Amino acid sequence: MSWKGNCLIAQSGGPTAVINNSISGLIKESLRQTRIKTVYGAIFGIKGVLDEQLIDLGLESRQTIDGLRYTPGAALGSCRYKLQDSDYEKLLAIFKKHDIRFFFYVGGNDSMDTANKIHQLAQTSGYDMAVVGVPKTVDNDLPETDHSPGYGSAAKYIATVVKETGLDLQGIVASSDIAILEVMGRNAGWLTAAAALAKNNREEAPHLIYLPEVAFDRERFVNDVLKVYDKLGYAYVVASEGLTDKNGNYIAAEKATDAFGHVKLGNGLATTLKEYITKEANLKVRCNILGTSQRSAIHNSSRTDASEAYMAGIEAVKLAARGMSGIMVTLERKDHPYYLSSLGYTDLDRVANREKTMPLSMINEEHNNITKEFLDYARPLIEGEISIPMHQGLPVFVTLEGYKRMNLISRKPAS
Amino acid sequence: MSWKGNCLIAQSGGPTAVINNSISGLIKESLRQTRIKTVYGAIFGIKGVLDEQLIDLGLESRQTIDGLRYTPGAALGSCRYKLQDSDYEKLLAIFKKHDIRFFFYVGGNDSMDTANKIHQLAQTSGYDMAVVGVPKTVDNDLPETDHSPGYGSAAKYIATVVKETGLDLQGIVASSDIAILEVMGRNAGWLTAAAALAKNNREEAPHLIYLPEVAFDRERFVNDVLKVYDKLGYAYVVASEGLTDKNGNYIAAEKATDAFGHVKLGNGLATTLKEYITKEANLKVRCNILGTSQRSAIHNSSRTDASEAYMAGIEAVKLAARGMSGIMVTLERKDHPYYLSSLGYTDLDRVANREKTMPLSMINEEHNNITKEFLDYARPLIEGEISIPMHQGLPVFVTLEGYKRMNLISRKPAS
Repeated sequence: MSWKGNCLIAQSGGPTAVINNSISGLIKESLRQTRIKTVYGAIFGIKGVLDEQLIDLGLESRQTIDGLRYTPGAALGSCRYKLQDSDYEKLLAIFKKHDIRFFFYVGGNDSMDTANKIHQLAQTSGYDMAVVGVPKTVDNDLPETDHSPGYGSAAKYIATVVKETGLDLQGIVASSDIAILEVMGRNAGWLTAAAALAKNNREEAPHLIYLPEVAFDRERFVNDVLKVYDKLGYAYVVASEGLTDKNGNYIAAEKATDAFGHVKLGNGLATTLKEYITKEANLKVRCNILGTSQRSAIHNSSRTDASEAYMAGIEAVKLAARGMSGIMVTLERKDHPYYLSSLGYTDLDRVANREKTMPLSMINEEHNNITKEFLDYARPLIEGEISIPMHQGLPVFVTLEGYKRMNLISRKPAS
Repeated sequence: MSWKGNCLIAQSGGPTAVINNSISGLIKESLRQTRIKTVYGAIFGIKGVLDEQLIDLGLESRQTIDGLRYTPGAALGSCRYKLQDSDYEKLLAIFKKHDIRFFFYVGGNDSMDTANKIHQLAQTSGYDMAVVGVPKTVDNDLPETDHSPGYGSAAKYIATVVKETGLDLQGIVASSDIAILEVMGRNAGWLTAAAALAKNNREEAPHLIYLPEVAFDRERFVNDVLKVYDKLGYAYVVASEGLTDKNGNYIAAEKATDAFGHVKLGNGLATTLKEYITKEANLKVRCNILGTSQRSAIHNSSRTDASEAYMAGIEAVKLAARGMSGIMVTLERKDHPYYLSSLGYTDLDRVANREKTMPLSMINEEHNNITKEFLDYARPLIEGEISIPMHQGLPVFVTLEGYKRMNLISRKPAS
């Protein structure tokens, strides 16, 4: 295999704080590889490919490409779009037209499904193209990899906020009795569980953790809360937005579904839990709903995570340059004598549309907390800080020049 | 005036990220002053004084007292308690019993009212005691001071999160169209307005800012949002939890009131605004409600703010040691040639129970944004970062030894 050609980089789904580390690594390594000629980026994911919104990333300054390493959001723009049968022919034509021979897609489960389909499209069409996925998700629910880039930073932010707001709760009498933090994660509790990293002793937050892996029981929940409150005079609850009852129904769900048919979760979980408590006891309950700050808080990100995201981008290009296709980069872990991650890969069809939830061995018997096994797993992933250039007290982020030019045209709402 | 005696330090109301900087300054300077013998702290504010929950702060290690400078929450514990007529006699007896001759209260408007009443109590009783207030509030609504310790750090956190989540919103098509950030501040919009510091160009968040100083109009709001959306394809809204309609009714209020008779605001504002939008247009709206993390995010605090909080604590002791009483420390500003703050003081009765809201000159004519005057005012207050010791990826906070011993007894809920 010695064909040469252009490469195309795109990202998809909800961003993470460090997703652009992967983009930075992909661009840098693509520019280094002699088999790769022009390095294109698609604006707004696979949708941008279909719309032929491609920019030449080789024209970006070194400063901007480096700056991606501390810039949150999706620097190339992202989308949630499920490919239609009618799209494939068009995609292939566009790949051919622009001589795209390397395709890199940074995303989660759904995106890996998209990447897999593109890989299969190339294969069945006899079109030489290497397709490699780069994992990203704050949910940490991608299988076949020890953990996913993006998770460590979100976990660190959650744990930090719980440590801080936990002290706030502990220190003030007669303001709030109960704090509820609602955490992202549709079906996997990894990010919710990360709150436990904040706790060093019995008094400290969090006291109760509710995960989507086990059925939520309203009565048991209220009892749990009152038991902690009776002991300490306060209780800090952390709950996943994706909690379900024993019949598998979401505790708080909106009616809408997204492009992939997933139920959309609103801001209802925390307030629902609040109602459960206040209906049973005269307690003051305060809800914290961090929303999208969980997946964009680069200001409190993990250096371990940022580095791994960057290295995963570089590795994807190296694998593709060796002619490999239909794979996703993975992170492997060596914990002895100390944490060390190395890069591997797995077949896309082992990842596509599959979710890795928390094993029951990481959840306590009462289903209201985690076990030490989880702490051992998660602790190394939040280590280390990154340095962000500051101006007038705020972080300075970069924007790709090509994105700036395309953005206004692309984002105009369809009317 | 040359009496000597013990001093008592207490804090009250909701904490700020840097409130313990003031406590640290108060302790250090009190330990230095020859007129002050034992340095006491009251656990849980004025409630702790009434309950005689006093700890000897002179027994704390230098390391702990320094550590307060990067520890959020109320290190001494706080309360929301309005003094009853029957409390005064008891208070005076306790002051006499422990020979309290210097009383320092760190808090906001309500706390300054409490401090003022204690000052008057001492005066009318002919009891020699210096009472000095130290300002703190993320709401920045204390009059007679250019700004309040605690505000700069909360403002920096809000602006940082808006910068980050703004990129998140901009970068992703078909996930969310509209983002709403709900910000603390019952009647003053200072903290909500701080979101504007994040914005450098037309595309960047925030696009619309709604402040409690001006009446909120539902129809105009929806129009504003749709106008921005039509131009950009997304819109980022920041709104104060304390928005009121033209009749002065809160847009989102719970029925309960706190000890001072203030209406308690629930988590309802953002979701109410979301409904306003979704009833008029088929748009995806996402709410971020940072809750108590706004007043405890020391991990992203302002060095300017932390220093001023610390210096205000020191200054309070110096003023008291000169025999001054019935005053609150203030911050004065000199902006030319560059920002420099100095310390002053004002009479407590000029502060007690009064609120400083934003002047209309800082709010735009359309009542949906701020003016440059506000940016010039706020920008210097968020400057500089503080360094926090880290362990395993998380900040390390301190706890007062005396608080540890008292806490479990004190927090036990009244049954």
